[in-house]
Amino acid sequence: MLKLPGLIDPHVHVREPGATHKEDWDTVTQAALAGGVTAILAMPNTKPPIFDDATFDLAIKAASQKARCDYGQYVGAGPDNADIAASLAPKAAGLKMYLDSTFGELRLDDMQLWMPHFQKFPKSAPMVMHSESRTMAAAILFSAIYDHPVHIAHVSLKEEILLIKAAKEKGIKVTCEVCPHHLFLSKEDIPAISHGHPGRGEVRPRLATKEDVDNLWINLDVIDCFATDHAPHTLEEKDGENPPPGFPGLETMLPLLLTAASEGRLTIDQIVQKLYENPRRIFNLPEQPNTYIEVDENATYEIKASEGFTRCGWTPFEGWKVKGRVQKVVLRGKTAFEDGKVLAEAGSGKNVRK
Amino acid sequence: MLKLPGLIDPHVHVREPGATHKEDWDTVTQAALAGGVTAILAMPNTKPPIFDDATFDLAIKAASQKARCDYGQYVGAGPDNADIAASLAPKAAGLKMYLDSTFGELRLDDMQLWMPHFQKFPKSAPMVMHSESRTMAAAILFSAIYDHPVHIAHVSLKEEILLIKAAKEKGIKVTCEVCPHHLFLSKEDIPAISHGHPGRGEVRPRLATKEDVDNLWINLDVIDCFATDHAPHTLEEKDGENPPPGFPGLETMLPLLLTAASEGRLTIDQIVQKLYENPRRIFNLPEQPNTYIEVDENATYEIKASEGFTRCGWTPFEGWKVKGRVQKVVLRGKTAFEDGKVLAEAGSGKNVRK
Repeated sequence: MLKLPGLIDPHVHVREPGATHKEDWDTVTQAALAGGVTAILAMPNTKPPIFDDATFDLAIKAASQKARCDYGQYVGAGPDNADIAASLAPKAAGLKMYLDSTFGELRLDDMQLWMPHFQKFPKSAPMVMHSESRTMAAAILFSAIYDHPVHIAHVSLKEEILLIKAAKEKGIKVTCEVCPHHLFLSKEDIPAISHGHPGRGEVRPRLATKEDVDNLWINLDVIDCFATDHAPHTLEEKDGENPPPGFPGLETMLPLLLTAASEGRLTIDQIVQKLYENPRRIFNLPEQPNTYIEVDENATYEIKASEGFTRCGWTPFEGWKVKGRVQKVVLRGKTAFEDGKVLAEAGSGKNVRK
Repeated sequence: MLKLPGLIDPHVHVREPGATHKEDWDTVTQAALAGGVTAILAMPNTKPPIFDDATFDLAIKAASQKARCDYGQYVGAGPDNADIAASLAPKAAGLKMYLDSTFGELRLDDMQLWMPHFQKFPKSAPMVMHSESRTMAAAILFSAIYDHPVHIAHVSLKEEILLIKAAKEKGIKVTCEVCPHHLFLSKEDIPAISHGHPGRGEVRPRLATKEDVDNLWINLDVIDCFATDHAPHTLEEKDGENPPPGFPGLETMLPLLLTAASEGRLTIDQIVQKLYENPRRIFNLPEQPNTYIEVDENATYEIKASEGFTRCGWTPFEGWKVKGRVQKVVLRGKTAFEDGKVLAEAGSGKNVRK
């Protein structure tokens, strides 16, 4: 039995407030614990989005009542909330900037709108960028100009990881995360995921080429964190018209990585570094005392969504044979998960910023 | 009579080789002299594009036979010509990278393809970027990472000029140019330019908002050069299906700027700085001995394409009342233009890199 620290996932879509038919703070933290994750950082693009005091309190209230693992809540950057976002920094997981999507309160389609956030958000507080390709390069330039560290979410392309590598070598304060689905799936896998429903293969950033995937593995040392970008949608939504992009990921991340470790593709130390040490440092997270997970490295089994806790009820990895199972999770001295059962109570999770 | 140095236009589309029905090295250099310009740097997106020794020689041969003012020829960056382009650097005006357009030999749609050019093109040789908005930010990041100065072509947006300002303040080696049509026209002027033919208003970068235009003027100090992006197309092409983007500009630039100077919007010193001193420094251009232009600051007249030398035969500034006329151009001791007549002979222009 392998003992590891409780894992940290800095990129989770909880769906509460606003879309609790997909997921809520209760189910998402159950899925987290089942995946060996004892702290999640929640994205702000909920309904309503989290962009001011009132919406922030809405999310935190739900989390405090329902969460079964520890959590932080991002505040979203909007076109005119730079002062408010900065004032929320001490309470927030960090600032999330959506630089490639344009919707509602978190719309930032002109680079002028990035400037006040870079000027005002505290230097020591994390800023996370949804920024693909040359938008990512622009975000890194902002980091260099405003001397503010940035964390690039869900890197998926060879050009991205190579540019991050070059920027790090130049001393620019950039860190990044990669999602398991961009490490284990390419666009060639979309037909197998889809089962005739092309919406099931939709995710942003899109699944990339084999060459992109290979270059993420080649540049594993450039990757600071793994993160799920857990983005649950129901199968009905994925199979309907206008399928929303996104995959669930909390319960499958560690088994997939342990399987890769068993194949010699990465080490357990790298898993711990990218799912515990680095995210703790990058996101200034407190220690969780008496917290660890126990993993049966040799347990082999098939991934089945029907055995999972996420409300969305499916996974793009259905039927994958994996090696490595989370047996037990202990959070602050209490067994929170064991033998497939969540034991932690709703509301027992702590806010990492309190 | 005002005496000024011979002006330098670092951004001209000569159209030869390949589209001499629009313009050639003879007509374009006549237009240059009529506009007070004694040196032009020619863009490489001709037919064929200038991207290797053979195509470079093709352009230079035509120039040496026909040019009536001095000239340099850019080499274009392509997906696999980084070594060849670097070897051409001593002979070339500089390297032109088309980062927002994707066509044929000069296609650079993946940032991986930028890297070898930044690594191999000599540090002292100019690199010019067609890069708009966040692509421009990416180009500036490359400048910072690879420690290679970049010159941003045809800045047109408020977000662009503000970001260039911030990058300069941070010490990043970026310079930029602005075209007269982005200083004197906004998208609100398109109907007046079009005369019912919307193709006449097409230019890249597009004419921007009044707020963008105002912010170019507000940030005049951030603008290193004026450049025409002289891009002649015939009226038949502009008024046909799929109208090609681009305006002629060589003959109207100085009169428009002198008019603005007469209105107190900029100084003659700023004109000289941005059309002579800065381009000479940025593009490492030799002195043109005994070269100057004489301008009648008080001559007022209407711009008429019918009185011009560019083969394309139209201008978006048709009928504009301007104040300031080029009377005489002396190039290396010889009168090259006087009283509306080009006196320099075809082939008398010199290659600035020889």
